[in-house]
Amino acid sequence: MTKPANHTLTWLKCLPETAPCAAKTPMETARAELDAAACAPKVELALEPSLGEGFRLEPQGEGYLLAGGETGVLYGAYRLLMACAAGDALPLGSHAPYYALRMLNCWDNADGTIERGYSGRSLFFEGGRFDYDPDRMRQLARMLASVGMNVLCINNVNVHENEHQLIEEAWLPQLAELAALFRPYGVRLMVSIDYAHPLRGGVPTADPLDARVAQWWKERADLVYSYVPDLAGFLVKADSEHRPGPFTYGRTHADGANMLAKALAPHGGTLVWRCFVYNCMQDWRDTVTDRPMAAYQHYAYLDGQFDGNVILQVKNGPFDFQVREPVSPLFYAMPKTNLALEVQLAQEYTGHQTDIYAMPPMWKEIFDDLPPSRVMAMAAVSNLGRDENYTGHPFAAVNLFAYGMTAWDPATDPAQVIRLWCRLTYSLPAQQEDALHALLMGSRRVYEKYTAPLGLCWMVEPHTHYGPSPMGYEYALWGTYHKANRDAVGIDRTSRGTGYAAQYPAEMAARYENRETCPELLLLFFHRMRYDDVMADGRTLIQRIYDDHFEGCDEAEEMARVLASLDLPPQDAQTAHERMVRQLRNAREWRDVTNTFFYRLSGVPDAKGRKIYD
Amino acid sequence: MTKPANHTLTWLKCLPETAPCAAKTPMETARAELDAAACAPKVELALEPSLGEGFRLEPQGEGYLLAGGETGVLYGAYRLLMACAAGDALPLGSHAPYYALRMLNCWDNADGTIERGYSGRSLFFEGGRFDYDPDRMRQLARMLASVGMNVLCINNVNVHENEHQLIEEAWLPQLAELAALFRPYGVRLMVSIDYAHPLRGGVPTADPLDARVAQWWKERADLVYSYVPDLAGFLVKADSEHRPGPFTYGRTHADGANMLAKALAPHGGTLVWRCFVYNCMQDWRDTVTDRPMAAYQHYAYLDGQFDGNVILQVKNGPFDFQVREPVSPLFYAMPKTNLALEVQLAQEYTGHQTDIYAMPPMWKEIFDDLPPSRVMAMAAVSNLGRDENYTGHPFAAVNLFAYGMTAWDPATDPAQVIRLWCRLTYSLPAQQEDALHALLMGSRRVYEKYTAPLGLCWMVEPHTHYGPSPMGYEYALWGTYHKANRDAVGIDRTSRGTGYAAQYPAEMAARYENRETCPELLLLFFHRMRYDDVMADGRTLIQRIYDDHFEGCDEAEEMARVLASLDLPPQDAQTAHERMVRQLRNAREWRDVTNTFFYRLSGVPDAKGRKIYD
Repeated sequence: MTKPANHTLTWLKCLPETAPCAAKTPMETARAELDAAACAPKVELALEPSLGEGFRLEPQGEGYLLAGGETGVLYGAYRLLMACAAGDALPLGSHAPYYALRMLNCWDNADGTIERGYSGRSLFFEGGRFDYDPDRMRQLARMLASVGMNVLCINNVNVHENEHQLIEEAWLPQLAELAALFRPYGVRLMVSIDYAHPLRGGVPTADPLDARVAQWWKERADLVYSYVPDLAGFLVKADSEHRPGPFTYGRTHADGANMLAKALAPHGGTLVWRCFVYNCMQDWRDTVTDRPMAAYQHYAYLDGQFDGNVILQVKNGPFDFQVREPVSPLFYAMPKTNLALEVQLAQEYTGHQTDIYAMPPMWKEIFDDLPPSRVMAMAAVSNLGRDENYTGHPFAAVNLFAYGMTAWDPATDPAQVIRLWCRLTYSLPAQQEDALHALLMGSRRVYEKYTAPLGLCWMVEPHTHYGPSPMGYEYALWGTYHKANRDAVGIDRTSRGTGYAAQYPAEMAARYENRETCPELLLLFFHRMRYDDVMADGRTLIQRIYDDHFEGCDEAEEMARVLASLDLPPQDAQTAHERMVRQLRNAREWRDVTNTFFYRLSGVPDAKGRKIYD
Repeated sequence: MTKPANHTLTWLKCLPETAPCAAKTPMETARAELDAAACAPKVELALEPSLGEGFRLEPQGEGYLLAGGETGVLYGAYRLLMACAAGDALPLGSHAPYYALRMLNCWDNADGTIERGYSGRSLFFEGGRFDYDPDRMRQLARMLASVGMNVLCINNVNVHENEHQLIEEAWLPQLAELAALFRPYGVRLMVSIDYAHPLRGGVPTADPLDARVAQWWKERADLVYSYVPDLAGFLVKADSEHRPGPFTYGRTHADGANMLAKALAPHGGTLVWRCFVYNCMQDWRDTVTDRPMAAYQHYAYLDGQFDGNVILQVKNGPFDFQVREPVSPLFYAMPKTNLALEVQLAQEYTGHQTDIYAMPPMWKEIFDDLPPSRVMAMAAVSNLGRDENYTGHPFAAVNLFAYGMTAWDPATDPAQVIRLWCRLTYSLPAQQEDALHALLMGSRRVYEKYTAPLGLCWMVEPHTHYGPSPMGYEYALWGTYHKANRDAVGIDRTSRGTGYAAQYPAEMAARYENRETCPELLLLFFHRMRYDDVMADGRTLIQRIYDDHFEGCDEAEEMARVLASLDLPPQDAQTAHERMVRQLRNAREWRDVTNTFFYRLSGVPDAKGRKIYD
């Protein structure tokens, strides 16, 4: 069966269209890729198990010696091939990943839909069952391995009716078949489980301290691992947004996580427990509860109580993948606990893979505030789907690519990784490559400018999370309010307000507490400000809001001009241009709605006389 | 087959549980109902075709003579039976309906859902096909006939895939069977059609001036009437909210309606054409387009151009069944055209049959402004569904009952008709009946008070149309804006603004134009007002808004106390109480959200110091 030509290889265009399918191990895959690649130098492979996932590349005779652990060799082979294709220096010397787990979380449902998916339907499921193209699975595995990802969770953290079967007898042989497709690429599968699954299995409770529950999970883990011996583990979203969990039984999340972890431990499996817990039925009149404080409140006191094979997976910010948030304070509060940093490639709040939004500069900001050593793994919500190009917008692939690189090395330079993606994907003339590079590098800031100002968050259309709705969440149950009135906007999260800032270490807290030292782009996250408050540069807050929105929209128009000047492959050009039309419409709508919203409240006209509708 | 006891007979509890099923004509039905009723006096029936739908009741010997046209006799019989049951004087003398067509429009879909239905699933359809209980159809027919309704349109004006079949060969025998169930009750069926149906039937156009189109509809009408010879006609929603229509072909709605009417004319059928046409893709920045002006703009100039068997069906107000609107100006603009007044029993914007909302006082207001002679028919969007009590909330049945009475006689007194419904339905002790009567009479004003103020409209949750969302429609495409800012709220629809008021006859226009003479409860429909503007009673607008919202909520709580004091049948009591809990929660939410919204904008505290959240 020939591969449909329109399943693009994104940044792996340097490789043959068909992925190796005879290889049984990563080492064999590495050999096959190197042999098949047009441009590869002569490379001898050597297995050095002590290198684990790392590799070492050194000159040898007329070619090179690539030594590494089983998957390390494969990573090395891809790095080498990509360097060749990009015309870069080969990655000589020793390399090893910073984080042992570099996970991709797919929010795919068995019915074929993807929660917050913007690239078509599921690559794995359709109509309530497994349904995938094996060739495409290998391509996907190849993409992940090429940038060092090693764990793929294939189903939504919100586990529905059908997905329970992923760990039931009927579906396990199929899960094993899928795992076998990814294994030669060093990618281990993970599955999201329903904390309350034992209730379906005849156990009358899901109390984590009940021996029957522990026994049920032990037997279940034994069964699952008998089919997929290298399963990476289970991922759990419990007591969150109406999901069941230990709270039902008056137990802590340590009780719940450790019980599951003990079932996985004999198999070397990891239990990944998401910390996205908050009151999603808040009353907007309640001024005491402050949603960003929730994760800390629910978990910090449990530090040190989790088993060694438990990882708490914490979203980068305390809200939910907004355009700009401070780093979650939980990362500083649990030094004795394994933590994974979770980011979201799916552009849920960041443009639905319609608007261009390259994330590496954002991740750099996270690591600027968060020493990489504070976490021991990374996870990313997938932006993949069944679309021909996998990511909807062809440029969205840069985020998948760069995520892998960043999880491998958190010190990855955003500018360099975006440059590499541009070059591997498009081979444009230098001036055009520079233009595309600049466009991507600036794209997040442009989006930020025309959406909610200065870390205010949540001024989006409820449910869809696309498009402006300044009041969409103001009286809702989600704990996400800005309380804009005729004089001021924002929640005071300092010690004079909800006290959220105090969840950070003292030095950070002090920085956020003080309006003079608080990062400007987070001012409205931490402070309630009057429209006539004067910013560091002398502008008033209201003028700054207007300026950002006009500028953001102008800059989006400039992005459109740049895009039109690029000689992209026809298919990508068409998709990107069609989406840019929508991005511009969206940007203008966002600019006008936001400016009008604040103008109606403040009554202050734009100092520069630009059009604000009344 | 015995009738499930839980299919209540609402106000027809005086009748036997099972409707007559052997009767073939309304006269036979009348005889059977009179014979079976426990309380009926001795009545002789006489057919007097000249009386049409009217009847005459006169004493005769020890009993009465009831003479009438074929359906008139049946109407007389029900009126007599209800008078007996209520202990009222018998309806002696001559009676005839004011309007020849008294229509009920069901927005039922073949899949079993009901658009804007709040009483369960469709009574007629399920799973893409006809699916009904014949006994229940007779009960429904009886309910309609008892208050004089004579036309039942069974499917949604938004015609979807499956409902096309209603006028296609495969479904026509079933349509005929259903018609046969209603015929003995004097109720004629009507069907909603898709204007573009010929395109499915092999005609390459739906241009109303194309002879092939006219021929297709002629043949189609001939076919339909060969199955249902007394079909009342077709109902059409064209060029509205994305429905196809004559505009596609550059033709007027007179062209479209007349073409269809000519197909129906040989069969005595009526073509009912809805006038709900407006731009549902408006830009909120557009201050020239004013949605309430749309129907007048689209139709007034066509006055006199419609065939005699065309009726233009006009919603009572220029928007869309809001809690309070002025009468549609179209009713004054088309003296040479048949017009039907359309009201909505389904509580789309008026509480979803969760909140209590008795409509007769609202209809009285309509007829206070609109001489009944301006229209020649009435139509009501149904509030019925498969729920045991047909209307979700048991009290919602009062609207169906009173609508029939009002369509028969627009001078019907709201207080009297509500009193009669209370008595027939519940036989409560006098004091309780008075309390229920007062509760129902006041219910609309209570709902109005805690929702959007003074005719402002549209401060509801988009899509569902239930619950407060002060900004829900503010930046949307629907042409429904209030432009509230820190100083003022409302659209100026006078000659100084959009000019909407000028669509009315001079005297009315002058009344609305002038803030002194404009009805107070419509002030914010016609005028943009500052929060500190002083009302006739000396209060400021902002204080009036606060007062209404606090009072409305208090009054809802008083309604709850009254409800709790009534000795209702257990099933009705349970349903009503359960819904009252939700109504109260809703009322409080609406009060607080609306007050906070205006407080944040205006900065004006409540003069009486009540709690407004900031």
